[in-house]
Amino acid sequence: MTILPRDDTNEEAGRLYLEDLHVGQRFTTGSHTLDAGQIKAFALQFDPQMFHLDEESATDSLFAGLAASGWHTAAISMRLIVDGGARIAGGLIGAGGEIHWPRPTRPGDTLHVVSEIMEIRPSRSRPDRGIVMMRDETRNQNDEIVQTFVAKLVVWRRPGG
Amino acid sequence: MTILPRDDTNEEAGRLYLEDLHVGQRFTTGSHTLDAGQIKAFALQFDPQMFHLDEESATDSLFAGLAASGWHTAAISMRLIVDGGARIAGGLIGAGGEIHWPRPTRPGDTLHVVSEIMEIRPSRSRPDRGIVMMRDETRNQNDEIVQTFVAKLVVWRRPGG
Repeated sequence: MTILPRDDTNEEAGRLYLEDLHVGQRFTTGSHTLDAGQIKAFALQFDPQMFHLDEESATDSLFAGLAASGWHTAAISMRLIVDGGARIAGGLIGAGGEIHWPRPTRPGDTLHVVSEIMEIRPSRSRPDRGIVMMRDETRNQNDEIVQTFVAKLVVWRRPGG
Repeated sequence: MTILPRDDTNEEAGRLYLEDLHVGQRFTTGSHTLDAGQIKAFALQFDPQMFHLDEESATDSLFAGLAASGWHTAAISMRLIVDGGARIAGGLIGAGGEIHWPRPTRPGDTLHVVSEIMEIRPSRSRPDRGIVMMRDETRNQNDEIVQTFVAKLVVWRRPGG
């Protein structure tokens, strides 16, 4: 994806500004399938705990089998959204949010993300932007939710709008 | 790290059970220095937006310069905690939490995490465990906070305790 300059001379077609969003609007991404190798490679670098690294040890853990790091699920979800979720003008800029992992992501899972706009708050102090609350649900191939993230996004108003 | 069996025959010395924790208890990790290469490599895989990939494009973005993906800051923070934060028996098992990125992580930043136990709730329905709220602050070399994560952790009671 490319960064949009904040004027309309070089606007990428179809990108969404604050005025283009409404509460209840939904976006669905493409999908990504994980395997054990991806789970272990991420864990080795960022979350080297045995339930993310070794099938046998994971059997005796709370997860009762190899599970992806929650941060891996979060990172994959972000990639799916950047590639094919809400195409926000200027990019997806998150200030943070509330994240939950109600069930583990497993080897072989195919994930996709369904996002919904929950709230839109134009900024009073900064007329060029607003805050958008977007709920991202990451679902597996059985439509079970493996992650929810209620994100607080900075979204630009349309220049000259 | 190793997964602890949930009996005391093979306990790794110094691991912390629910009974070993108290509100206000603090843990400080070692540190990790990022460079632009790490920031771009993570972004290329998980968050390919120009403000995480290209210095020149990033100059014109909200970040006014190359910035790490928030998920990269989260992943590095996790690694720091696993390597040298609260050594919870059975590993760090997070159900989720509230994450914020009050300022960007930049190339050259040296991060560490300071964690504090905020709340301890023994489970009523499951006597072998409790829920612990832990606030993790990721700080840079100037002691500025680049991430807060108030995590909800599952922590085991000491077996036979």
